[in-house]
Amino acid sequence: MARYVVDVMPKREILDPQGKAVLGALPRLGFDRVLDVRQGKRFELEVDGEPTDQTLADVRKMAETLLSNPVIEDYSVSVVELETQGSDQ
Amino acid sequence: MARYVVDVMPKREILDPQGKAVLGALPRLGFDRVLDVRQGKRFELEVDGEPTDQTLADVRKMAETLLSNPVIEDYSVSVVELETQGSDQ
Repeated sequence: MARYVVDVMPKREILDPQGKAVLGALPRLGFDRVLDVRQGKRFELEVDGEPTDQTLADVRKMAETLLSNPVIEDYSVSVVELETQGSDQ
Repeated sequence: MARYVVDVMPKREILDPQGKAVLGALPRLGFDRVLDVRQGKRFELEVDGEPTDQTLADVRKMAETLLSNPVIEDYSVSVVELETQGSDQ
């Protein structure tokens, strides 16, 4: 089994109202050195079998078609290897 | 300037309806080897000055008080060093 992490962030040129809301709240909590905040999404996917190039390509396709909106968001995919339990394929 | 990344994920024992919705949609798109999906949040914070232990402690406090709900979510903080522009402090 392998764990993939997909990070989805709003593109730099896109307004990010959630990030701006956090940025606006920080001074009220006493934090005044934060210059910018961007808020995005993080997905952790557990996929059957060992990590392969094909699986990575599949996860990239999921990121592009389901997990992000490529018009306004960028995504990045990384793999976290977990233990392989025997040989199930 | 330093960039901090705060990842906020639902705790393992907490139901994650957003993740389950993604998991349910994947087979319809032809991906049938994904066993589990968890959806969380990712924040990128740009903080003035060089990264210090005090800044890291501040960002942890932001994560705990504003960015996450510690009852149902776990957070992790990491730092991405950017170029330091001269010595502004």
